[in-house]
Amino acid sequence: MRATVIHGTRDIRLEEAPRPTLAGTGRDAIVRVVAACICGSDLWPYRGVTETAEPKRIGHEFVGVVEEVGDGVTGVAPGDFVIAPFYDCDMTCAHCQNGVSPSCQNSNWWGRDDRDGHFADGAQGEFVRVPTADGSLTVVPGPIDDAMVPHLLTLSDVMGTGWHAAVSAGVARGSTVVVVGDGAVGLCGVIAAQQLGAARIIAMSRHADRQALAREFGATDIVAERGDAGIEAIMRLTDGLGADSVLECVGTAESMDQAIRAARPGGRVGYVGVPHGGAELPIRTLFSRNVGVAGGIAPVRNYVDALLPLVLDGTIQPGRVFDRELPLDEVVEGYRLMDEREAIKVLLRP
Amino acid sequence: MRATVIHGTRDIRLEEAPRPTLAGTGRDAIVRVVAACICGSDLWPYRGVTETAEPKRIGHEFVGVVEEVGDGVTGVAPGDFVIAPFYDCDMTCAHCQNGVSPSCQNSNWWGRDDRDGHFADGAQGEFVRVPTADGSLTVVPGPIDDAMVPHLLTLSDVMGTGWHAAVSAGVARGSTVVVVGDGAVGLCGVIAAQQLGAARIIAMSRHADRQALAREFGATDIVAERGDAGIEAIMRLTDGLGADSVLECVGTAESMDQAIRAARPGGRVGYVGVPHGGAELPIRTLFSRNVGVAGGIAPVRNYVDALLPLVLDGTIQPGRVFDRELPLDEVVEGYRLMDEREAIKVLLRP
Repeated sequence: MRATVIHGTRDIRLEEAPRPTLAGTGRDAIVRVVAACICGSDLWPYRGVTETAEPKRIGHEFVGVVEEVGDGVTGVAPGDFVIAPFYDCDMTCAHCQNGVSPSCQNSNWWGRDDRDGHFADGAQGEFVRVPTADGSLTVVPGPIDDAMVPHLLTLSDVMGTGWHAAVSAGVARGSTVVVVGDGAVGLCGVIAAQQLGAARIIAMSRHADRQALAREFGATDIVAERGDAGIEAIMRLTDGLGADSVLECVGTAESMDQAIRAARPGGRVGYVGVPHGGAELPIRTLFSRNVGVAGGIAPVRNYVDALLPLVLDGTIQPGRVFDRELPLDEVVEGYRLMDEREAIKVLLRP
Repeated sequence: MRATVIHGTRDIRLEEAPRPTLAGTGRDAIVRVVAACICGSDLWPYRGVTETAEPKRIGHEFVGVVEEVGDGVTGVAPGDFVIAPFYDCDMTCAHCQNGVSPSCQNSNWWGRDDRDGHFADGAQGEFVRVPTADGSLTVVPGPIDDAMVPHLLTLSDVMGTGWHAAVSAGVARGSTVVVVGDGAVGLCGVIAAQQLGAARIIAMSRHADRQALAREFGATDIVAERGDAGIEAIMRLTDGLGADSVLECVGTAESMDQAIRAARPGGRVGYVGVPHGGAELPIRTLFSRNVGVAGGIAPVRNYVDALLPLVLDGTIQPGRVFDRELPLDEVVEGYRLMDEREAIKVLLRP
């Protein structure tokens, strides 16, 4: 089958790889990928911000159709249309039950060997072996309209991640919210804030197309400035108080600084951008203003049951963050479009 | 009048100071101090951890009887027994209304000039001018039994601060809680966790007297170890998971490290120890385990209305953290007792 491999900085290749087979664990499934996509976090190794020591399979977001299941799998069956989270998890351990499935005691990442030493494919390919099918996969009742696929695919990562930012930031009915970051996750954070009842949603964005989508998703205000000017703009919009909740959806030291300074005393920052740049959290600033910080690797598998109905009935349309769709054969072009910000998020069809 | 002045490292003196008078703002009150005390945070300048550039009045916790009030004061009257928080606040600004009175837009600290340039006395003395009487002072319905005074005095700081740690850590019914720090605040944190319904409260303490008091306050387990051994002990007690909520009640880099490592994935650290030592919060550790951190300068004035009834009806007895009582004349000895850990907390009677 065809699968995407990253070899190093800006070196993405579509290659032939062995088509996966059941490993005999009794817990796994083979899924034919219907749609995958490129994540902002895939750009970290692509840009060389994180090192790629040796070639490795890449991609962690996919939806597809189950082809085969292991003997012990009871929750999914061949022919089911399924959503996978961006990690594998069992949903039965204490951490999964506590709502933190990325910390699953049997968790695994795509593109690596699982705990039993069997490979779990990366998602940017034709087929994926899912180590813990009953835990990871959510069945979508069929038939699936093709137009629904992009929306469903966001439940694999970006919509659930935006939701986690909003939940972690304590967004509640009537909240004033700032969203730092206008990538797919930030835009999904706007959707989440709107769904959780925010009265005011200030999106920080410098790109006209993203500003427009943010407004359609529920943003009431746009701040294009960054740094001190950005904070001044937010303070003007909030009577000098700052926001109740701030969603940090980038992961750089600069974006976290913006987020902390945008929060009012007693406010909360929910962060989901993978931290890069080495800066730690400034404890004395947080302490003196009682600003809390929560978030992390989003437990999207725990959120999918709540979000799927909102997608299926059209209440939310997070798939609109995909502004480009390419065949898998053009995955290299997909990375280029994302890297050069010519696309917000690229959907890939094998 | 007599008032306590810090001149430098381990140089505390009881001196003569002008008895305060109303400043003409119409908002202030003169309170005769009935009881004050020495705080763990007073030990930072006492020990030279923070510099004392010039002699200054010290002490920020007191209860007393109102002697005089400014023209515009309506909430308190001469003769009222009152509790003051460890800061002055108006309780009418947006931050106070949001529950974060230490960030009051008109806030002030004891022992400094207020926003109008009039002095607000330190609390370890005979009288204090309170700049914003209607906001800061809570009237306790009389008559006041002398045995009730220590309990009421804790609402000025340590009980409200322990409460803030527990609230910030998200303690809820059934929670497993770890309390880092066995000083007066940590012990009050045990009380708070117990009141908020924690099912299990693990107190980290190496001192037999404090361990005993922690147990009487509701601790179900004691961990005497620190560092890696302390974390191992907590993991043994929690099936290897860690705690839902951790109260960080010390303020050193080591204690915060203990707190973060003691939390389960998805857990929360509530911290109230004034941060010392320069270490920032390790964002990648927090991110990878979804551990949230919240807390800061405790809004004790916002909590006093909820806590006062629990003190008055004997539900909680936080005043038991005072294991020594001295006349104000012996304030120097009081600091020595606290510094050398011969006392948990020293109460002073002018």
